[in-house]
Amino acid sequence: MTLSSIKISLISLVSAFALLGCANTAPTNPSTETKESTAQSIRQVMASQQQAWNSGNLTAFMQGYWQSDKLRFASGNSYRFGWQSTLDNYIKGYPDKATMGQLKFDIIDINQVSDDVAIVFGRWHLTRENDQPKGLYTLLFEKKNGQWLITQDHTSSAKN
Amino acid sequence: MTLSSIKISLISLVSAFALLGCANTAPTNPSTETKESTAQSIRQVMASQQQAWNSGNLTAFMQGYWQSDKLRFASGNSYRFGWQSTLDNYIKGYPDKATMGQLKFDIIDINQVSDDVAIVFGRWHLTRENDQPKGLYTLLFEKKNGQWLITQDHTSSAKN
Repeated sequence: MTLSSIKISLISLVSAFALLGCANTAPTNPSTETKESTAQSIRQVMASQQQAWNSGNLTAFMQGYWQSDKLRFASGNSYRFGWQSTLDNYIKGYPDKATMGQLKFDIIDINQVSDDVAIVFGRWHLTRENDQPKGLYTLLFEKKNGQWLITQDHTSSAKN
Repeated sequence: MTLSSIKISLISLVSAFALLGCANTAPTNPSTETKESTAQSIRQVMASQQQAWNSGNLTAFMQGYWQSDKLRFASGNSYRFGWQSTLDNYIKGYPDKATMGQLKFDIIDINQVSDDVAIVFGRWHLTRENDQPKGLYTLLFEKKNGQWLITQDHTSSAKN
Protein backbone atom coordinates (compact mmCIF):
# COMPACT_ATOMS: atom_id res chain seq x y z
CA MET A 1 0.00 0.00 0.00
CA THR A 2 1.54 3.30 -1.11
CA LEU A 3 1.07 6.59 0.74
CA SER A 4 -0.96 7.82 -2.24
CA SER A 5 -3.40 4.88 -2.11
CA ILE A 6 -3.78 5.39 1.66
CA LYS A 7 -4.74 9.03 0.97
CA ILE A 8 -7.41 7.93 -1.52
CA SER A 9 -8.79 5.32 0.93
CA LEU A 10 -8.82 7.99 3.60
CA ILE A 11 -10.83 10.39 1.41
CA SER A 12 -13.32 7.64 0.51
CA LEU A 13 -13.70 6.65 4.12
CA VAL A 14 -14.14 10.24 5.28
CA SER A 15 -16.87 10.73 2.67
CA ALA A 16 -18.58 7.46 3.61
CA PHE A 17 -18.49 8.29 7.30
CA ALA A 18 -19.70 11.84 6.72
CA LEU A 19 -22.69 10.45 4.80
CA LEU A 20 -23.37 7.75 7.38
CA GLY A 21 -23.06 10.23 10.21
CA CYS A 22 -25.80 12.34 8.68
CA ALA A 23 -28.11 9.55 7.56
CA ASN A 24 -30.33 9.81 10.63
CA THR A 25 -30.53 13.58 10.68
CA ALA A 26 -32.67 15.99 8.73
CA PRO A 27 -31.99 19.59 7.76
CA THR A 28 -33.53 22.15 10.12
CA ASN A 29 -35.29 23.72 7.15
CA PRO A 30 -36.76 21.36 4.55
CA SER A 31 -35.96 22.28 0.95
CA THR A 32 -38.35 24.32 -1.18
CA GLU A 33 -39.13 21.18 -3.24
CA THR A 34 -39.96 19.20 -0.08
CA LYS A 35 -42.14 22.03 1.21
CA GLU A 36 -44.05 22.27 -2.08
CA SER A 37 -44.62 18.51 -2.15
CA THR A 38 -45.78 18.54 1.48
CA ALA A 39 -48.13 21.48 0.86
CA GLN A 40 -49.63 19.61 -2.08
CA SER A 41 -50.19 16.46 0.04
CA ILE A 42 -51.77 18.50 2.83
CA ARG A 43 -54.05 20.36 0.41
CA GLN A 44 -55.16 16.96 -0.95
CA VAL A 45 -55.95 15.65 2.55
CA MET A 46 -58.01 18.73 3.33
CA ALA A 47 -59.77 18.72 -0.04
CA SER A 48 -60.75 15.07 0.58
CA GLN A 49 -62.01 16.00 4.03
CA GLN A 50 -64.10 18.85 2.62
CA GLN A 51 -65.56 16.55 -0.03
CA ALA A 52 -66.35 13.84 2.56
CA TRP A 53 -68.05 16.34 4.88
CA ASN A 54 -70.11 17.78 2.05
CA SER A 55 -71.33 14.31 1.08
CA GLY A 56 -72.39 13.73 4.69
CA ASN A 57 -69.71 11.12 5.42
CA LEU A 58 -68.08 11.84 8.79
CA THR A 59 -66.08 8.59 8.86
CA ALA A 60 -64.51 9.52 5.51
CA PHE A 61 -63.90 13.06 6.82
CA MET A 62 -62.03 11.53 9.77
CA GLN A 63 -59.56 9.79 7.43
CA GLY A 64 -57.60 13.05 7.44
CA TYR A 65 -56.91 12.52 11.15
CA TRP A 66 -54.31 10.24 12.72
CA GLN A 67 -56.08 7.03 13.78
CA SER A 68 -54.60 7.05 17.25
CA ASP A 69 -55.64 7.47 20.87
CA LYS A 70 -53.06 10.28 20.96
CA LEU A 71 -54.88 12.46 18.43
CA ARG A 72 -55.78 15.73 20.22
CA PHE A 73 -58.81 17.79 19.27
CA ALA A 74 -59.36 21.16 20.95
CA SER A 75 -62.26 23.54 20.45
CA GLY A 76 -63.39 26.52 22.54
CA ASN A 77 -62.67 25.54 26.12
CA SER A 78 -62.54 21.77 25.80
CA TYR A 79 -60.26 19.19 24.32
CA ARG A 80 -60.30 15.43 23.91
CA PHE A 81 -57.93 12.68 22.87
CA GLY A 82 -58.49 9.88 20.39
CA TRP A 83 -59.68 9.34 16.87
CA GLN A 84 -62.84 7.43 17.85
CA SER A 85 -63.75 9.96 20.53
CA THR A 86 -63.37 12.79 18.00
CA LEU A 87 -65.56 10.96 15.47
CA ASP A 88 -68.19 10.24 18.15
CA ASN A 89 -68.24 13.92 19.07
CA TYR A 90 -68.67 14.96 15.44
CA ILE A 91 -71.57 12.50 15.03
CA LYS A 92 -73.18 13.97 18.17
CA GLY A 93 -72.71 17.57 16.97
CA TYR A 94 -73.62 16.92 13.33
CA PRO A 95 -76.29 14.17 13.31
CA ASP A 96 -77.49 14.76 9.72
CA LYS A 97 -76.61 16.42 6.42
CA ALA A 98 -78.68 19.52 7.26
CA THR A 99 -76.65 20.09 10.45
CA MET A 100 -73.41 19.41 8.62
CA GLY A 101 -74.19 21.89 5.86
CA GLN A 102 -71.50 22.72 3.32
CA LEU A 103 -67.96 23.02 4.63
CA LYS A 104 -65.28 25.19 3.11
CA PHE A 105 -61.66 25.26 4.22
CA ASP A 106 -59.50 28.26 3.36
CA ILE A 107 -55.86 27.43 3.93
CA ILE A 108 -54.01 30.58 4.98
CA ASP A 109 -50.59 29.12 5.79
CA ILE A 110 -48.73 25.80 5.54
CA ASN A 111 -45.54 25.99 7.59
CA GLN A 112 -43.38 22.87 7.30
CA VAL A 113 -40.95 23.01 10.22
CA SER A 114 -39.18 19.65 9.78
CA ASP A 115 -39.22 16.67 7.42
CA ASP A 116 -42.28 15.20 9.15
CA VAL A 117 -44.03 18.13 10.86
CA ALA A 118 -46.08 21.00 9.43
CA ILE A 119 -48.37 23.57 11.04
CA VAL A 120 -51.41 24.56 9.03
CA PHE A 121 -53.53 27.63 9.75
CA GLY A 122 -56.75 28.68 8.09
CA ARG A 123 -60.44 29.50 8.14
CA TRP A 124 -63.42 27.17 8.13
CA HIS A 125 -66.93 28.12 7.01
CA LEU A 126 -70.17 26.18 7.26
CA THR A 127 -73.09 27.16 5.07
CA ARG A 128 -76.39 25.89 6.49
CA GLU A 129 -80.00 26.82 5.94
CA ASN A 130 -80.33 28.86 9.12
CA ASP A 131 -76.82 29.99 9.97
CA GLN A 132 -73.26 30.25 8.75
CA PRO A 133 -70.86 29.29 11.54
CA LYS A 134 -67.22 30.10 10.87
CA GLY A 135 -63.88 30.27 12.56
CA LEU A 136 -60.18 29.45 12.48
CA TYR A 137 -58.10 26.30 12.80
CA THR A 138 -54.50 25.52 13.67
CA LEU A 139 -53.58 21.98 12.67
CA LEU A 140 -50.48 20.00 13.43
CA PHE A 141 -49.84 17.70 10.48
CA GLU A 142 -47.36 14.85 10.91
CA LYS A 143 -46.06 12.34 8.40
CA LYS A 144 -47.10 8.93 9.70
CA ASN A 145 -46.07 5.88 7.64
CA GLY A 146 -45.51 8.14 4.66
CA GLN A 147 -48.87 9.88 4.96
CA TRP A 148 -49.56 13.44 6.15
CA LEU A 149 -52.26 13.35 8.83
CA ILE A 150 -53.69 15.76 11.42
CA THR A 151 -52.38 14.79 14.85
CA GLN A 152 -53.51 17.93 16.70
CA ASP A 153 -56.42 20.24 15.92
CA HIS A 154 -57.27 23.53 17.64
CA THR A 155 -60.43 25.14 16.35
CA SER A 156 -62.11 28.38 17.35
CA SER A 157 -65.29 30.04 16.15
CA ALA A 158 -66.81 33.46 15.59
CA LYS A 159 -68.75 33.28 18.83
CA ASN A 160 -65.76 33.62 21.17
CA MET B 1 5.17 8.43 9.46
CA THR B 2 4.40 4.83 10.41
CA LEU B 3 1.34 2.91 9.19
CA SER B 4 0.04 2.96 12.76
CA SER B 5 0.22 6.77 13.03
CA ILE B 6 -1.48 7.08 9.62
CA LYS B 7 -4.35 4.94 10.99
CA ILE B 8 -4.73 7.20 14.02
CA SER B 9 -4.70 10.35 11.84
CA LEU B 10 -7.30 8.72 9.61
CA ILE B 11 -9.60 7.97 12.56
CA SER B 12 -9.23 11.56 13.86
CA LEU B 13 -9.96 12.96 10.43
CA VAL B 14 -12.99 10.73 9.91
CA SER B 15 -14.39 11.84 13.26
CA ALA B 16 -13.71 15.51 12.51
CA PHE B 17 -15.34 15.29 9.07
CA ALA B 18 -18.33 13.38 10.44
CA LEU B 19 -18.87 16.16 12.98
CA LEU B 20 -18.36 18.93 10.40
CA GLY B 21 -20.69 17.22 7.96
CA CYS B 22 -23.48 17.33 10.52
CA ALA B 23 -22.87 20.86 11.78
CA ASN B 24 -25.64 22.38 9.69
CA THR B 25 -28.20 19.68 10.27
CA ALA B 26 -30.35 18.90 13.27
CA PRO B 27 -31.73 15.56 14.41
CA THR B 28 -35.36 14.96 13.42
CA ASN B 29 -36.09 14.32 17.07
CA PRO B 30 -34.24 16.52 19.55
CA SER B 31 -32.62 14.63 22.42
CA THR B 32 -34.36 14.26 25.78
CA GLU B 33 -31.82 16.69 27.30
CA THR B 34 -32.54 19.29 24.60
CA LYS B 35 -36.28 18.86 25.09
CA GLU B 36 -35.99 19.28 28.86
CA SER B 37 -33.90 22.40 28.47
CA THR B 38 -36.35 23.83 25.91
CA ALA B 39 -39.34 23.04 28.13
CA GLN B 40 -37.64 24.84 31.01
CA SER B 41 -36.96 27.93 28.86
CA ILE B 42 -40.55 27.98 27.59
CA ARG B 43 -41.93 27.60 31.13
CA GLN B 44 -39.78 30.57 32.17
CA VAL B 45 -41.08 32.72 29.29
CA MET B 46 -44.68 31.91 30.20
CA ALA B 47 -44.10 32.41 33.94
CA SER B 48 -42.64 35.85 33.17
CA GLN B 49 -45.65 36.64 30.99
CA GLN B 50 -48.06 35.60 33.76
CA GLN B 51 -46.18 37.73 36.29
CA ALA B 52 -46.13 40.74 33.92
CA TRP B 53 -49.87 40.43 33.23
CA ASN B 54 -50.67 40.13 36.93
CA SER B 55 -48.71 43.30 37.68
CA GLY B 56 -50.70 45.11 34.96
CA ASN B 57 -47.78 45.47 32.55
CA LEU B 58 -48.88 44.53 29.03
CA THR B 59 -45.63 45.67 27.39
CA ALA B 60 -43.68 43.33 29.69
CA PHE B 61 -46.22 40.56 28.95
CA MET B 62 -45.54 41.07 25.24
CA GLN B 63 -41.81 40.31 25.73
CA GLY B 64 -42.75 36.63 25.40
CA TYR B 65 -43.77 37.30 21.78
CA TRP B 66 -41.50 37.63 18.76
CA GLN B 67 -41.01 41.35 18.08
CA SER B 68 -41.80 41.06 14.39
CA ASP B 69 -44.44 42.11 11.90
CA LYS B 70 -44.74 38.38 11.12
CA LEU B 71 -46.02 37.46 14.58
CA ARG B 72 -49.50 35.94 14.11
CA PHE B 73 -52.18 36.19 16.76
CA ALA B 74 -55.48 34.36 16.23
CA SER B 75 -58.51 34.34 18.50
CA GLY B 76 -62.09 33.25 17.83
CA ASN B 77 -62.75 34.22 14.22
CA SER B 78 -60.09 36.87 13.73
CA TYR B 79 -56.35 37.04 13.39
CA ARG B 80 -53.79 39.78 13.06
CA PHE B 81 -50.10 40.09 12.28
CA GLY B 82 -47.45 42.05 14.12
CA TRP B 83 -46.11 42.54 17.63
CA GLN B 84 -47.25 46.17 17.91
CA SER B 85 -50.71 45.40 16.55
CA THR B 86 -51.08 42.58 19.08
CA LEU B 87 -50.01 44.85 21.94
CA ASP B 88 -52.40 47.59 20.77
CA ASN B 89 -55.23 45.07 20.70
CA TYR B 90 -54.42 43.86 24.21
CA ILE B 91 -54.37 47.48 25.47
CA LYS B 92 -57.77 48.03 23.86
CA GLY B 93 -59.26 44.84 25.34
CA TYR B 94 -57.64 45.18 28.76
CA PRO B 95 -57.45 48.93 29.53
CA ASP B 96 -56.83 48.58 33.30
CA LYS B 97 -55.79 46.17 36.03
CA ALA B 98 -59.42 45.34 36.90
CA THR B 99 -60.10 44.24 33.31
CA MET B 100 -56.84 42.32 33.18
CA GLY B 101 -57.59 40.44 36.40
CA GLN B 102 -55.28 37.63 37.46
CA LEU B 103 -53.99 35.36 34.70
CA LYS B 104 -53.05 31.75 35.15
CA PHE B 105 -51.48 29.58 32.46
CA ASP B 106 -51.69 25.80 32.76
CA ILE B 107 -49.26 24.17 30.35
CA ILE B 108 -50.68 20.84 29.16
CA ASP B 109 -48.07 19.89 26.56
CA ILE B 110 -44.71 21.11 25.24
CA ASN B 111 -43.91 19.33 21.99
CA GLN B 112 -40.48 20.19 20.60
CA VAL B 113 -40.48 19.09 16.96
CA SER B 114 -37.05 20.38 15.86
CA ASP B 115 -34.07 22.16 17.35
CA ASP B 116 -35.77 25.53 17.03
CA VAL B 117 -39.52 24.81 16.96
CA ALA B 118 -41.91 23.73 19.71
CA ILE B 119 -45.69 23.59 19.93
CA VAL B 120 -47.20 24.43 23.30
CA PHE B 121 -50.78 23.65 24.28
CA GLY B 122 -52.58 24.60 27.45
CA ARG B 123 -55.33 26.41 29.34
CA TRP B 124 -55.62 30.04 30.35
CA HIS B 125 -57.80 31.37 33.15
CA LEU B 126 -58.60 34.94 34.11
CA THR B 127 -59.93 35.67 37.59
CA ARG B 128 -61.78 39.00 37.68
CA GLU B 129 -64.28 40.55 40.07
CA ASN B 130 -67.32 39.83 37.91
CA ASP B 131 -66.34 36.91 35.71
CA GLN B 132 -63.78 34.20 35.09
CA PRO B 133 -63.04 33.91 31.38
CA LYS B 134 -61.08 30.84 30.37
CA GLY B 135 -60.00 28.88 27.34
CA LEU B 136 -57.23 27.09 25.49
CA TYR B 137 -54.12 28.17 23.61
CA THR B 138 -51.88 26.60 20.97
CA LEU B 139 -48.58 28.44 20.72
CA LEU B 140 -45.81 28.07 18.19
CA PHE B 141 -42.55 28.80 19.97
CA GLU B 142 -39.43 29.39 17.87
CA LYS B 143 -35.85 29.95 18.92
CA LYS B 144 -34.90 33.39 17.64
CA ASN B 145 -31.34 34.59 18.32
CA GLY B 146 -31.02 31.96 21.04
CA GLN B 147 -34.30 32.92 22.74
CA TRP B 148 -37.56 30.94 22.73
CA LEU B 149 -40.41 33.26 21.71
CA ILE B 150 -44.05 32.89 20.65
CA THR B 151 -44.28 33.43 16.88
CA GLN B 152 -47.86 32.18 16.43
CA ASP B 153 -50.72 32.18 18.96
CA HIS B 154 -54.17 30.61 18.52
CA THR B 155 -56.48 31.20 21.45
CA SER B 156 -60.05 30.06 22.04
CA SER B 157 -62.43 30.65 24.91
CA ALA B 158 -65.27 28.99 26.80
CA LYS B 159 -67.87 31.00 24.90
CA ASN B 160 -67.43 29.26 21.54
